Amino acid sequence: MSTATYTVTGMTCGHCVASVTEEVEQVAGVTAVAVDLPTGRVTVTSEAPVDDALIKGAVEEAGYALQA
Amino acid sequence: MSTATYTVTGMTCGHCVASVTEEVEQVAGVTAVAVDLPTGRVTVTSEAPVDDALIKGAVEEAGYALQA
Repeated sequence: MSTATYTVTGMTCGHCVASVTEEVEQVAGVTAVAVDLPTGRVTVTSEAPVDDALIKGAVEEAGYALQA
Repeated sequence: MSTATYTVTGMTCGHCVASVTEEVEQVAGVTAVAVDLPTGRVTVTSEAPVDDALIKGAVEEAGYALQA
């Protein structure tokens, strides 16, 4: 099992959290997604390490961005 | 036709706008709902004047509040 943490910018409410969670959960191999709204911290648990670019793409698909 | 304007607090993003719009549109007689996110201003157009309590209830159903 693998865990990685990202910081997502632009989330302002529970709807935003739900959107990001939903998209990141769809990345192959991801088994759990935990979002902390105040900090923008997104913890992604997966079977094996996931390419950061796939997480970035999912976050952007939801309409948000990874912190540079 | 009747138009009334309310100020809704707590909306932070487009998802919030969509939630409020969806709930208020379901109030009987309402024909159009326009939300301005920066100000929280919600303009409700209806066939005949609508009881403010029904709009208040719809806004609260969406998870927000009318400004006191």
